[in-house]
Amino acid sequence: MRVIDIIQKKKYGGKLSKDEIDFFIKGYAAGDIPDYQIASLLMAIWFNGMDKEETTELTLSMVDSGDRIDLSLIPGIKVDKHSTGGVADTTTLVVGPLVAAAGGLVAKMSGRGLGHTGGTLDKLESIPGFTIALSMEEFADVVKKCGVSVIGQTGNLVPADKKLYALRDVTGTVDNLSLIAGSVMSKKIAAGSDKIVLDVKTGSGAFMKSVEDAAALGRLMVDIGKLEGRETHAFVTDMNQPLGNAVGNALEVREAIEILQGKHAGDLKELSIALAVRMLVLGEVFESRKQADEKVRSVIEDGSALEKFSKMIELQGGDPKVTEDVSLLPAAGSLIEIKAERAGYLTAMDTESLGMGAHLLGAGRTKKSDPIDPAVGYWIRKRLGDYVEKGDVLAYFHVNDKKNLDEAVAKFKDALTVGEKSSGNRKLIYSEIS
Amino acid sequence: MRVIDIIQKKKYGGKLSKDEIDFFIKGYAAGDIPDYQIASLLMAIWFNGMDKEETTELTLSMVDSGDRIDLSLIPGIKVDKHSTGGVADTTTLVVGPLVAAAGGLVAKMSGRGLGHTGGTLDKLESIPGFTIALSMEEFADVVKKCGVSVIGQTGNLVPADKKLYALRDVTGTVDNLSLIAGSVMSKKIAAGSDKIVLDVKTGSGAFMKSVEDAAALGRLMVDIGKLEGRETHAFVTDMNQPLGNAVGNALEVREAIEILQGKHAGDLKELSIALAVRMLVLGEVFESRKQADEKVRSVIEDGSALEKFSKMIELQGGDPKVTEDVSLLPAAGSLIEIKAERAGYLTAMDTESLGMGAHLLGAGRTKKSDPIDPAVGYWIRKRLGDYVEKGDVLAYFHVNDKKNLDEAVAKFKDALTVGEKSSGNRKLIYSEIS
Repeated sequence: MRVIDIIQKKKYGGKLSKDEIDFFIKGYAAGDIPDYQIASLLMAIWFNGMDKEETTELTLSMVDSGDRIDLSLIPGIKVDKHSTGGVADTTTLVVGPLVAAAGGLVAKMSGRGLGHTGGTLDKLESIPGFTIALSMEEFADVVKKCGVSVIGQTGNLVPADKKLYALRDVTGTVDNLSLIAGSVMSKKIAAGSDKIVLDVKTGSGAFMKSVEDAAALGRLMVDIGKLEGRETHAFVTDMNQPLGNAVGNALEVREAIEILQGKHAGDLKELSIALAVRMLVLGEVFESRKQADEKVRSVIEDGSALEKFSKMIELQGGDPKVTEDVSLLPAAGSLIEIKAERAGYLTAMDTESLGMGAHLLGAGRTKKSDPIDPAVGYWIRKRLGDYVEKGDVLAYFHVNDKKNLDEAVAKFKDALTVGEKSSGNRKLIYSEIS
Repeated sequence: MRVIDIIQKKKYGGKLSKDEIDFFIKGYAAGDIPDYQIASLLMAIWFNGMDKEETTELTLSMVDSGDRIDLSLIPGIKVDKHSTGGVADTTTLVVGPLVAAAGGLVAKMSGRGLGHTGGTLDKLESIPGFTIALSMEEFADVVKKCGVSVIGQTGNLVPADKKLYALRDVTGTVDNLSLIAGSVMSKKIAAGSDKIVLDVKTGSGAFMKSVEDAAALGRLMVDIGKLEGRETHAFVTDMNQPLGNAVGNALEVREAIEILQGKHAGDLKELSIALAVRMLVLGEVFESRKQADEKVRSVIEDGSALEKFSKMIELQGGDPKVTEDVSLLPAAGSLIEIKAERAGYLTAMDTESLGMGAHLLGAGRTKKSDPIDPAVGYWIRKRLGDYVEKGDVLAYFHVNDKKNLDEAVAKFKDALTVGEKSSGNRKLIYSEIS
């Protein structure tokens, strides 16, 4: 078998066989096939697509390129949760404690931020002392003790995806349904949970700009999960504005804590509850969503969810007092008010640009090796549909290094569209697929 | 400027600017842009194409990546000739002496064979003592003394094409009009001739399988030549069967010599005359094609073309006596008859497979560094439309190493289709573009 023949087949619109997909994934992971041939194949896949069967084979080949995590150390049904990435999407930090407090189990491996999106591990590491590097035994122990643990990837999980993702990023082949589905589902399957809840983002801050594309991606991933015996449920949710109001690592931890303290309402809280409810029903903790929803809301009110978060932080070496006193989190040197220059309704946000604005302040990274500043970012004060008076504070910027401040402010302001009329009702959850 | 943005632009069907094309060609030639990004860009170009303006900019950027040959050492109008590659296409060895004997000048840099196609340099090197490595002064001297010289590429000509061609070959991006046109025309422009005659092949042994695609490629190259001030003329010619009857290096030299001796008629001779006539008119040696045609046919009859070939061989260190006695050329150890297994009309040939058949005997190379055997190949006895009796000799195989003989014979036989009815008239020259 030769890669060039596989490239030609896909270039002319052919369907790749299991053997062909196995050949190029294994060959690439092993370093036998050079980047340039895979780059050309990826672009041919971008143009001609892969059908469901090809995508499933791709996913399984990718899983087989590395280890599979064995979560049997932890008794019970483990439900994983994954978001396709957005801005101010701190759901994991809210959902984990909610599910644990309601009687479920969350044994989650998370990732780091790249580009305009944040990463759960970076957020957690802004908590003084917190470690995301646990052994499998320690990980299982934390889950057993408090029902929730979030760690970095352990073992050699889906090495093919690591190489493929890095290559897609620099060759313009990120935005393809099959490649995205293969990347997400291979990691979820290898990570060992029994069931999976997916949050597929759509809108100006997501890879999927249209609701239809996001739904198609969700459907594809649900089908792959089913074929692999992992019951999967997908939400299609809005990313036309940051999900929460905080953008930046410690700021997002603070917002998660304040939601668990019952201090905030809004999209981040509501989506977190919806995800937690679905996970609890999938995990067979509750029979109905109604029961689960009542329980989840009660664990916020009675403080038991916050207690779970505090316990997890403590068990992972962090300072649990941050859940009582958010001023213990890293804080930036300067607080700068960004004010509205004209009055009107906030009709649109370029959410990707908003993410890049925080990135410019030092909250994100372009390359995996870039350092980040946990303290910086901003807290947005307005949401889509709000009426803004001239001079109203649009956001508070939390700043240390002012090198890129002007550019970050300009990017932030350019990302907001103010119009004469309110754009009407907006949806948070567009659809669910199971 | 970033390559990733150029990739995305082309991926979404955008038109690349001169600056963008310059950026990626120069960056790639300089080694600043990695293979994998260019591979992905090439595949995006394969899918979305380049228009005439983009292709012209591509060509000129490629020329500017290296040196331009200065042929002003040689007085007069130099006309270059290029074939897009085929099987048994020995026109250069016939055309060069014809043009020189008729009063024109041919200062030609040729290439080596790769894949199923042969290369002029490999053929010439089968002549004992012949060298293709001359300095510019020696090259000019040979042209001044006998009107024709064929050498290997000298200087740092179009280094971008060397890298791009090698990459296209392994990434499935060879068969694109703009990339082919850019590759051919950049080399022709850099090689310094004043005018250019192109022979664009179409059919089962050519990259361009349809006459329409070949004509489009010819039109594109003629237009690029014009924009760069090099008058260019293109023929679209048939490659549904080997052009000549000999396939293999020394065998093709022998066929060229025998044509110049007046011993053979047929497609190779007729196309060589047509090309020579066009070159002589473009070179302003004759005012009309009729005059040039009469002269060219006369220089075969009076032996003066053969004399020019003999002189060129002598001046380039080879044994000129091969033009009188072809048995001085390298000869293979075994001669094997390939006989027809059934009677019927020869209705089709898979010419690419026929080329690969000779390749398997040792006449060609897969990688640039592969050694070749100058003596081996075969001489075909039948052409399309011929009636074949069972047991008729279809070809004589000239063989040394018998390792791949069975495979080569099978490939040869499989490449021939024998049917009940003759497929009617066939064309050698489909069209001309100027």
